[in-house]
Amino acid sequence: MILLDGKHTSNQIKEEIKDTVSGMKSRGERVPHLAAVLVGNDGASLTYVGSKVRSCEYVGFDSTLIHLEENITEAVLLKQIEKLNQDKTLDGYIVQLPLPKHIDEEKILLAIDPKKDVDGFHPANFGRMALELDAFIPATPFGIMQLLERYKVPTNGKHCVVVGRSHIVGRPISILMSQKGPAGNATVTVAHSRTEQLAELTRQADIIVMALGIPEYLTADMVKEGATIIDVGITRVADDSHPKGYVIKGDVKFDEVAQKAHFITPVPGGIGPMTIAMLLKNTLLARQWNAS
Amino acid sequence: MILLDGKHTSNQIKEEIKDTVSGMKSRGERVPHLAAVLVGNDGASLTYVGSKVRSCEYVGFDSTLIHLEENITEAVLLKQIEKLNQDKTLDGYIVQLPLPKHIDEEKILLAIDPKKDVDGFHPANFGRMALELDAFIPATPFGIMQLLERYKVPTNGKHCVVVGRSHIVGRPISILMSQKGPAGNATVTVAHSRTEQLAELTRQADIIVMALGIPEYLTADMVKEGATIIDVGITRVADDSHPKGYVIKGDVKFDEVAQKAHFITPVPGGIGPMTIAMLLKNTLLARQWNAS
Repeated sequence: MILLDGKHTSNQIKEEIKDTVSGMKSRGERVPHLAAVLVGNDGASLTYVGSKVRSCEYVGFDSTLIHLEENITEAVLLKQIEKLNQDKTLDGYIVQLPLPKHIDEEKILLAIDPKKDVDGFHPANFGRMALELDAFIPATPFGIMQLLERYKVPTNGKHCVVVGRSHIVGRPISILMSQKGPAGNATVTVAHSRTEQLAELTRQADIIVMALGIPEYLTADMVKEGATIIDVGITRVADDSHPKGYVIKGDVKFDEVAQKAHFITPVPGGIGPMTIAMLLKNTLLARQWNAS
Repeated sequence: MILLDGKHTSNQIKEEIKDTVSGMKSRGERVPHLAAVLVGNDGASLTYVGSKVRSCEYVGFDSTLIHLEENITEAVLLKQIEKLNQDKTLDGYIVQLPLPKHIDEEKILLAIDPKKDVDGFHPANFGRMALELDAFIPATPFGIMQLLERYKVPTNGKHCVVVGRSHIVGRPISILMSQKGPAGNATVTVAHSRTEQLAELTRQADIIVMALGIPEYLTADMVKEGATIIDVGITRVADDSHPKGYVIKGDVKFDEVAQKAHFITPVPGGIGPMTIAMLLKNTLLARQWNAS
């Protein structure tokens, strides 16, 4: 069994980006600049945004945190978005989700200039990705593709079952893996809550991507010997024996599935750490594309 | 065996559109207006465009044919596109493909205002469709969805195998059928030229969509008893016994597969006739969306 080590790989990618930025600096070029918009004081959001900003600093990017009051109006937020769209010193930005309930999330996401949409959530980016044009790919599927590619997991002609059809994980990874290119050319099945006889499907799969959000849903009897298992699930499960009062569980019953898998991602330390690395990668791409 | 009769259904849709347009006229509203841009004198393209214009007239749309010289420059064509984008009397338009080799097709398609892109080929439309926002859906997958819906073909939880991953058929139909909604909620597998053991997959399928372009590729031994068969293939095969010197073949060996299928589309007379009806439907939607 080979662990697909997202922590190690994401560090590797960060080092590569850091080297590229050093090169830019030494040539006197402007370094990539990422901004993060945070509305309100949600604890998890503060943690995520803080971690993104620190990662920017680590690789040598410029970063800006725009922290707005919880009770900001949609109109004022839209004006802020417009300002960021116009800002020529800024390569990309993200709007941390969720937004407060009085703000229409869809309206805000559609207002982001697709050329600065380093989260890859804008339909223009989704469409460009699906039609095989240059695009910002959402961090989670982008991270999965990088892990598969760097560990040389065979995908060409293989059968991959993606469990989950969300806009930011299930749907994009299913498209990417069935396109031509590295970690591509797979035969991909998208399964979801309505799927009949899921276990029959997953037992046929050479690769399973679990993006359902149900802790330990995938058990050993649902998996073929030698399969590759990608676990995108991150659910907090109450556990009094832990100081935090919870543990993080993936969608895969790791201990038993790992016995049968050839490649498998752990949770935590699998896909999770890859996402920030891919956000940085998208920001670097934004810098390069917008310059040309 | 039930024939999914595209000719009949497309006529029905045209009558519905005609009724809607009559209503608009009687209320003194402007009727939908479609333009078609044709570059050069390719025989097949002339036929297609002519047929689209006649269908517009039939349902009561205004239509404009913009027929340009084969040797027009890309810059002049782009100026024409810009004019159409600005034209407030025009709801939608198509640029008939293929374009002459000296013109960059991608550049032209990207210049079309997504709000007038009734072919649904622009990435902004593709992304909106995939993210379940209002969008123009390309005519072929839109036609398939309509046929499935109107014939009440069960799709919820069923396994659909789509053979082909093209941008305008295989990819979009695979997304649409796995989304929530009418003719949706299927478990969808996208297979293609690199797929290993295709017959094993298709034999499990409740629904098979063939969009490969290889005449009579799908044979009876690849199909489960009672399956639904959608044949998107249209290939001219030389045949001296016919006055035209060729016959039109689908991707399905119809005579033998029809013995096992519950629902099946014929070729011709299946998906083909649906496409013009769906182009008209998109133009009507453009008129309604742009008015609101």
